[in-house]
Amino acid sequence: MRVFSEGETVLILLGRKRFLMRLQRDQVQHTHHGLIHHNDLIGQLPGISLTTHLGYPLLALRPSLHDMIMSIERVSQIVYPKEIGYILLKLNVGPGCRIIEAGTGSGALTIALAHAVRPNGRVYSYEIREDMLRVAARNLADTGLQEWVELKQRDIATGFDERDIDAAFLDVRTPWLYLQAVWNALAEGGFFGAIVPTANQVSELIAALESSYFGDIEVSEILLRPYKPVAARLRPADRMVAHTGYLVFARRIEKALSHQSMPKGQISLEELTNG
Amino acid sequence: MRVFSEGETVLILLGRKRFLMRLQRDQVQHTHHGLIHHNDLIGQLPGISLTTHLGYPLLALRPSLHDMIMSIERVSQIVYPKEIGYILLKLNVGPGCRIIEAGTGSGALTIALAHAVRPNGRVYSYEIREDMLRVAARNLADTGLQEWVELKQRDIATGFDERDIDAAFLDVRTPWLYLQAVWNALAEGGFFGAIVPTANQVSELIAALESSYFGDIEVSEILLRPYKPVAARLRPADRMVAHTGYLVFARRIEKALSHQSMPKGQISLEELTNG
Amino acid sequence: MRVFSEGETVLILLGRKRFLMRLQRDQVQHTHHGLIHHNDLIGQLPGISLTTHLGYPLLALRPSLHDMIMSIERVSQIVYPKEIGYILLKLNVGPGCRIIEAGTGSGALTIALAHAVRPNGRVYSYEIREDMLRVAARNLADTGLQEWVELKQRDIATGFDERDIDAAFLDVRTPWLYLQAVWNALAEGGFFGAIVPTANQVSELIAALESSYFGDIEVSEILLRPYKPVAARLRPADRMVAHTGYLVFARRIEKALSHQSMPKGQISLEELTNG
Amino acid sequence: MRVFSEGETVLILLGRKRFLMRLQRDQVQHTHHGLIHHNDLIGQLPGISLTTHLGYPLLALRPSLHDMIMSIERVSQIVYPKEIGYILLKLNVGPGCRIIEAGTGSGALTIALAHAVRPNGRVYSYEIREDMLRVAARNLADTGLQEWVELKQRDIATGFDERDIDAAFLDVRTPWLYLQAVWNALAEGGFFGAIVPTANQVSELIAALESSYFGDIEVSEILLRPYKPVAARLRPADRMVAHTGYLVFARRIEKALSHQSMPKGQISLEELTNG
Repeated sequence: MRVFSEGETVLILLGRKRFLMRLQRDQVQHTHHGLIHHNDLIGQLPGISLTTHLGYPLLALRPSLHDMIMSIERVSQIVYPKEIGYILLKLNVGPGCRIIEAGTGSGALTIALAHAVRPNGRVYSYEIREDMLRVAARNLADTGLQEWVELKQRDIATGFDERDIDAAFLDVRTPWLYLQAVWNALAEGGFFGAIVPTANQVSELIAALESSYFGDIEVSEILLRPYKPVAARLRPADRMVAHTGYLVFARRIEKALSHQSMPKGQISLEELTNG
Repeated sequence: MRVFSEGETVLILLGRKRFLMRLQRDQVQHTHHGLIHHNDLIGQLPGISLTTHLGYPLLALRPSLHDMIMSIERVSQIVYPKEIGYILLKLNVGPGCRIIEAGTGSGALTIALAHAVRPNGRVYSYEIREDMLRVAARNLADTGLQEWVELKQRDIATGFDERDIDAAFLDVRTPWLYLQAVWNALAEGGFFGAIVPTANQVSELIAALESSYFGDIEVSEILLRPYKPVAARLRPADRMVAHTGYLVFARRIEKALSHQSMPKGQISLEELTNG
Repeated sequence: MRVFSEGETVLILLGRKRFLMRLQRDQVQHTHHGLIHHNDLIGQLPGISLTTHLGYPLLALRPSLHDMIMSIERVSQIVYPKEIGYILLKLNVGPGCRIIEAGTGSGALTIALAHAVRPNGRVYSYEIREDMLRVAARNLADTGLQEWVELKQRDIATGFDERDIDAAFLDVRTPWLYLQAVWNALAEGGFFGAIVPTANQVSELIAALESSYFGDIEVSEILLRPYKPVAARLRPADRMVAHTGYLVFARRIEKALSHQSMPKGQISLEELTNG
Repeated sequence: MRVFSEGETVLILLGRKRFLMRLQRDQVQHTHHGLIHHNDLIGQLPGISLTTHLGYPLLALRPSLHDMIMSIERVSQIVYPKEIGYILLKLNVGPGCRIIEAGTGSGALTIALAHAVRPNGRVYSYEIREDMLRVAARNLADTGLQEWVELKQRDIATGFDERDIDAAFLDVRTPWLYLQAVWNALAEGGFFGAIVPTANQVSELIAALESSYFGDIEVSEILLRPYKPVAARLRPADRMVAHTGYLVFARRIEKALSHQSMPKGQISLEELTNG
């Protein structure tokens, strides 16, 4: 596993570009800065520097999960790593977890979930569109994580097959319609998360969560501000992603809570759950 | 594992407060909203709602990793979950990884690393101050993750004991002084990360990385913008954390790269590595 | 006007505090760092440094408009300078402009508007609450700008008295209720602005603007990120104001625009006006 | 002045585009959505809607100062309106002020300063490059504000001609080299501001300010987050400007302040001036 071997996917940094490349004996990769001979990389250590046939230096590395997510084939707006990391923490994802996701989309979050639940967890990922599911399956296969994921082509309006799930994440247009299905699938106290692009959807979702036995509601945005990494001229990049979506998180609560039994005029469910 | 049992730590949401509480038979917790009898929770399902003896409703849940990190005992500025999630992704942390961390501080990142590398990975966490290490050890024990962590009281100026490490993260004042030690400890192409509070430190660190055989340098900040989760009056919170630190990431590269061999006047190492 | 004279308000910087102080002969100001004798400042040049009787150094300056706005007496959430500057530009405020504002609140924006429209412009500021109007009047008097402002205690549901106004700014809870009144008061093509704290209000306001003959709608937020100004340890402050309000701007358009006359299925009014 | 007249510059909103157009009798403007006949606009009220010859609706308005600044010819990175508004407030700019600016660049800030100091103030704008000065002069002429501006082609290393200036703003690469010249030109307590793109420059400038008799130093960034103004789908734009520059502000202080006279070990000049 130490040196690059045939069939392995490597990350190439060349000029201002980063790209993934699958190593195949006797193959040649054409780039704007000249040719890269795959044979020059096979058998070398990660972190090796070479030059193209035109003499431009390149750097070859094993791609991280982050690199793979950023370079998957996209058929939809993906969940970005800046959000993925926070989602994993808020949903308490770790080895052994059983997670539901809908929709699968291009599979960016699916890949990160699969990576995190190994070796004994499982991701159940629902997607209604067959074309997207095909792309997600390809992207998953490229990462070698498909063994931990069950892809299901299904309209989640018909509910989820699983029960006692640790966490569920919805990246769909109307997540508020599926809260009962999520509640049924989650274990007691299970974690719910969603990403929606508009403020109107956040409002609809919060209102639905409050009337569907979910508590500890949190809404937040994650902004990543990249810098130009030049020691003598440190400064933020000129432009940044201003918005991918609002994140909404909540926990499943038990129906035993009787609104009627609350002390009148003292504290509302909203105050209770939003701490 | 389903119902709350004696000795277990539960998360309580009461009024505007969130806190952790270890369940002990016949114990009583005093709060501003009245008493909570531990016996009322033992044997109940997570997500249960009760009232204090004054009639205020409360919600009891199993704490997430996020909840535990936010409520550890602090003897230093902690790395926040907003950064932790991104750090885990950028350092490619997952089950089976072997990770070095210095300094341990209060152990916030240590806990997240330990959680992520289970069941067969390991975290080597270095801290020079004995008082901090004691607090970190207590915080770790509270999460039950101590089995995956080796705490070492040591000045990292003397180097790290480990070799072929997957990733190393430095949360120290002068990370640029330890890059040779990090390089020696990392596997080929291994992941490096650091957090520093000031822009001056970022400049020093970038300069040192470029002359110490590290490539693919990235500098960024993560901002979390919390919202008040009220459906009819959705708005950001009034105040937010404006800064915890700048994140710097890089990869170990091989020394074979000869600066002299680069085509003159065409492309610099800086351009190469910063894509 | 060069040296500090009796009766003048000066800005004092002492330790970590900034405050305004009206110079009165033989007066003494008590502070946590000792006494300041007013006589020591009268007759001195702005920018002078003195020491308190305990030997602490202080700096005395003429306050800027920004300083005065930040230190007015507050009976309501004020519009902050970070927003005020942008509002002045977007509303095209300058010498000679006639501006309507409602509500007056504590008068922070009123002061900035009055300062900008001198010497021949005028600000008409409406406020329904008498208590607020009294505070705003006091704050205005402290700046010496009252001559350019007409304060009116009035419910704007009854409309505005003025016509052919250059710009109107609403800082009220339900700005969408007063758009007809604003339209009537504005000159052709006149500038409209509003600040509202919640996303729901923004949605309501946009919808009303689109059906009330306003065009060129813009919605934005202004964030000010303060830094600790230390040369060797440059870094953002720990905390910042995350939200004061959403800014909404639009222009009055003529009613001649017939929706029916638009080419079918090609371009909507929304596209037209939001460019 | 009410209706559009020949020779006047109007703002056109058409489809997703905004542009300025100078009205000339019998002229025709070609656009992607068809022709606009200037005669159709001359004599009409601002806010009028017309259609192109292909039937696309357009909106015609008098441009605001903001519109004019955003559409000037650019030969350099301009200071954006989000910064300009805050700069005007922090420098206390208003009718009657005398302001120094260097360098002029494309004249974006120059235009805003000229607009604000009317009718009896004056802007002295220094620029070393003749080509830039020519563009700035043209941009100024387009706004009709040239009467309040003195453009000077000059290396500011030789100092400024003016004395007793209210405020000075530097948009140059090494502002720390000209602080003595600024100090000499400013009135007592006068306002200093600068914009620099990198953190390293901020550090250099702060250090120089502290040793050059300037106090009340502030460093900040202004971020503008634009929203898509759609009532039913309110959300931030996908991308935003992440950085134009760091703003640094300070006040001229008197040299009388003796560092030696300060109480030992109690409070530093830095603490004094940064409040």
